Formats: sequence, C-alpha cells, structure tokens
Amino acid sequence: MAGKLPRIDHFGFDENRTFQQRYLVADQYWRKDSGPILFYTGNEGDIEWFCNNTGFMWDVAEELNAMLVFAEHRYYGQSLPFGNESFSDSKHLNYLTSEQALADFAVLVEYLKTTIAGAQHSPVIAIGGSYGGMLAAWFRMKYPHVVAGALAASAPIWQFGDLVPCGTFFSIVTNDFKKSGPGCSESIRNSWGAVNHLSSTDGVHDMFEPQKWDFDALSEECYRMWGVRPRLSWMLSMYGGKNISSHSNIIFSNGGLDPWSAGGVTQNITDSLVAVVIPDGAHHLDLRGRNPLDPKSVQQARAMEVCLMKEWIEKARHSH
Amino acid sequence: MAGKLPRIDHFGFDENRTFQQRYLVADQYWRKDSGPILFYTGNEGDIEWFCNNTGFMWDVAEELNAMLVFAEHRYYGQSLPFGNESFSDSKHLNYLTSEQALADFAVLVEYLKTTIAGAQHSPVIAIGGSYGGMLAAWFRMKYPHVVAGALAASAPIWQFGDLVPCGTFFSIVTNDFKKSGPGCSESIRNSWGAVNHLSSTDGVHDMFEPQKWDFDALSEECYRMWGVRPRLSWMLSMYGGKNISSHSNIIFSNGGLDPWSAGGVTQNITDSLVAVVIPDGAHHLDLRGRNPLDPKSVQQARAMEVCLMKEWIEKARHSH
Repeated sequence: MAGKLPRIDHFGFDENRTFQQRYLVADQYWRKDSGPILFYTGNEGDIEWFCNNTGFMWDVAEELNAMLVFAEHRYYGQSLPFGNESFSDSKHLNYLTSEQALADFAVLVEYLKTTIAGAQHSPVIAIGGSYGGMLAAWFRMKYPHVVAGALAASAPIWQFGDLVPCGTFFSIVTNDFKKSGPGCSESIRNSWGAVNHLSSTDGVHDMFEPQKWDFDALSEECYRMWGVRPRLSWMLSMYGGKNISSHSNIIFSNGGLDPWSAGGVTQNITDSLVAVVIPDGAHHLDLRGRNPLDPKSVQQARAMEVCLMKEWIEKARHSH
Repeated sequence: MAGKLPRIDHFGFDENRTFQQRYLVADQYWRKDSGPILFYTGNEGDIEWFCNNTGFMWDVAEELNAMLVFAEHRYYGQSLPFGNESFSDSKHLNYLTSEQALADFAVLVEYLKTTIAGAQHSPVIAIGGSYGGMLAAWFRMKYPHVVAGALAASAPIWQFGDLVPCGTFFSIVTNDFKKSGPGCSESIRNSWGAVNHLSSTDGVHDMFEPQKWDFDALSEECYRMWGVRPRLSWMLSMYGGKNISSHSNIIFSNGGLDPWSAGGVTQNITDSLVAVVIPDGAHHLDLRGRNPLDPKSVQQARAMEVCLMKEWIEKARHSH
C-alpha cells in the first residue's frame, strides 16, 4: 500500500534524508475506534511473502476485530533506503540495524494512528517470527508506549554470546532426524566426510562432525564481504541478554522440533513474559494459517496466544 | 580516573572508532560484593563540576555502602569523540545525541561490573539532575537490565512537543519574583520595553511580554549554527511522552520554585514511578550536599529518595 517516509538515520542529525518504507494494511475486519492493530514486524525479506505466510493473523483478525499491518524491514523488498545503491558499500549499509528497524516501526505506528480515522487509541500488538519475532519482542521492550504486547514466535533472542550452549541447535536437528527413522542420524554422521562442514558442533552428542565456532574467521569474512565487523557484546548491552524480567506482555513461542528453539525462551520468566512450547512444532508453525493437519499442540498454542492478546488489548483500552 | 573506550557510533557499523570517555570513581564507602553503585549520568558539562556539586551522592554513600561513579557525557569536558575536531561540522557532531550517551553509560556500567572485582552483582542506581535527570530516567526506561532504578532530579522529560503548556515555565518564574516582594513582578513586567525579548509567553499571566515560540526560526538558527535541524516528534516516539506507565523504579523530584518543574513529573504515575515535590526547592536542590539552611521539605525528599533506593537495591540483590 501507500508509502511512509521514515528517516534513513533515526539516531543522528547529519543524514537527514528519508526513504519509502512499504507496508500493507488490511482493515476489513477492523472495528473502528476500538479494534486493535496487529502489527507484523517485518524481517529479512519481501513483506508480501510474510503477509502471505502468516495465516495466523488473518485467521484471528475477525475474532479480534483487528486491523492487520505488515511493515517491511528496511533494506528488504521495496524498502531500500538508497535505492539500487543500498548495498553498494558500508556507508550505504550503515543503517541496516535492528535499532533503526525498530525505530521505523515506532514511527510508522504513530503515523498510522494519527492518519487513520478511529485508530488513535487502537492498542497495538507486535507479531513476528524468527528474526521478526526478535524484533517483536524488542519492540515491546524498547517502545512499550507504542505496543501493548508482543507475540515473538520462534525468536532466538538468546542466540548471542555465550547465553546458550552452542551445541543445542545441532542436538535438536539430530533428534529430528532420529525421529524420522532408526539409524538415520547415524548414517548422516558417518557421511560427513563427503560433505562440506556446516558449523559449530561437538561431534559427540549429535550427527555433525566436530568443528569450532571461529569468531575471528567470521569477523574476517564479514569485513571482506561488507566492510564491517560484527560486535559480540553489543546485543547483550542493548537488549539485556537473559536479564529481561522487568519487561512485560511478551509471548515467546517455540517449536520442539525447531533447532532455533535452542536460543529461545522456553520457560516462563514472569506472569507476563510467557513461554509457549509446541512440542510438535517446527519454526514458528503457530504463525501459519489453520490447517486440518495441525497437531493439537499448535492449536492449543494459538488459543493461548489469542487469549493473552485479548487480555493485553483489554487492559490497554482502559489505560488512556 | 581511567579512560574507557566506547564506540563513537553505537548504532551503526561503518564508523567503528572509539573514544576516551572520562569517568570518576569513589569506592571508599563501597562494600565489595554487595554494595550498590550510584551512577551519575553526566550532562552538559565537565564531569568534575557535577562531581563536586552533587553532594547528595557523597552524603548517602556511607549509609548505602555505595560506590560512586560519575560518567562524563560525550562531547563535554575531556570526553571528545574527535578531539579538537569534535565541534567542527555536522559530520563530527553527528554522534552528540541522548541515545548515544545512554549507550555509553550502558557499556560503561557493564565494563565496570566485569573489571572491578566484587562488582559483578552490584545493583546500579542512576542519578542525575536537569538534562542529566532526563538521562537517568531514560537510562532506566531503555536499559532496565543495566540499572535497577533512577533518581531523576528536576528532569523536564515532558518539555517536548505540546505535552505541557508553554506558559507554565514563565508563570513559575513570575511567582518566584512575586514571593520576593510586593510589586516586584509588576515592575519587571513594565520594564521589558528596555530589555530584549526572552522566549515564549502569553504576557497575560506572567511578568513577561507576549512572544510566540517560533519553531521554524529555531530550526533556521540551528541549521545556520550547526548544520542540522531539530526533530519535533522524535523525542516522543523514542521516550514515550506521557505514556510511560509500563516502566518502573523511577523517582521524579521537582522543586516548587523551579520553572523547569513545568515540564517535569509532579504526580505519581504508578507505585514505582514516584513524584517527589519539594515546595521550597529550586533546580535539583535535593542533589546538593546537606546544608544547615536546607528547608525541611528537601530533607524529607532526600529521606524518601534514600528509602526508595534501598528498596530497589534490596530487590535487585535477590533477583540474580
């Protein structure tokens, strides 16, 4: 739909140009003046793709009388800060960060609330999956005045530094293969000699060959490809690592089959930082549309998610 | 004391240089392993000046067994990101923002906790006055995993956009002069013909002559002097304006004589967002050292502040 114009740099004054951020709006189920806004925090891809693959939001829109908004992440799809030049060098890539993306979302929500008649007091729920789920959680953490709550599906917010053991990701993949038949994971392990190495593993408790995670090599590769180096500790300083208990109203959902659940929140932190585990689920299955083949566990997860969102929406409605 | 090296740009990857940030540490009253850290969020000036003028922190250090840390704000005192070039143009000034300053503070606290033996689990309380008080409040809001609470003294966090009426600042100044003697404010009002205009006022309810606040003129002046323009709405998007009730553990203290209280929080927002009003106080009098001439109201305010800080410290101690 229409284009909104966030700043390329929210955190400095020198680069004062703006860019066209794409977002999609579906308001056919929205009840003006009281209905909430379900806001999809777009992740690394074309927003149309996420819009078409997040059936959950479409399935619950009518029940919640909700407006749906899908916001495209800067530097993806059609939301290119510098057009074709966006990826040309580290100067142009400089504004591709989660902090800038969250600021885009905050500014967009406020723009929608002031320009759509009847939306001014609509409670907003952030919803996202994978990296987009991390953004949804962080959006609530950093801009709680903008979003009343967040559904962070399969969001590995703890896959940084040494917050979680490196090997768990690979153990889960191994278990998934074990479930698919006897001897399956063993066969795979024995065949690695013929396959390129993938990533870090201890080669003992999983089907992968031993390999060390080499930060320096990763840093070198980043520098060679993009002219910048990753920063190990900043994500923890910025988003709090495991110390997030002072925040509220976030659902962390994770699938038991999903290796990314290794870096996710799988136990309740407080009454309002809730973990939803879907034993039969893979990567953010709960965000997909209803399907006759859905396991019971994902149906229950979605029901609980809707229930919590209703609670937050109700509370937000009475807070202004 | 020693110099720590934060990045010049926390929010981008292209400018990857660091700079020397100055900070002062007093640990003579600190109880290793359990004592808290009182962290002064430096504002616009040399940190030694603030260190010498914030007697409150020195007065309570022993009672709280606290370490005192005074962190200098980037671009002030000796903490110049680009040395003598720091103010040369908008490129060099680009990193002078509250967001970057807060990130400096977050990174510094984590650095101190990992390098000072026995400080790892020390609860941290942010303390600041005026703009530094705004930083203290925002520090708790944006980095609640880093600071357990904040004392924001005379912090006009609502002096943005149209959150508070423009004229209140001048009404308070007028009342201050009224208190100093009969006819005083009237004489001043009648003498403005000979004095340059100061700022916005309605010229009816105060002793100032009428004058409109002209944002466009301000913007032009900024552009002429610094090559950048202010952004009216960003502070509200970033820090929430009046919608901050989901945060916790912040004391907003204000003096009744202080015109800046017009933009401050002077009523409790929640049980843990507490307003302390000091009727006989001017600009952050509570942060000054004990003095025999102190009015009763500031003594009571300080006592309440210490009481709340103790509560937060106790809670934080039991949370890890």
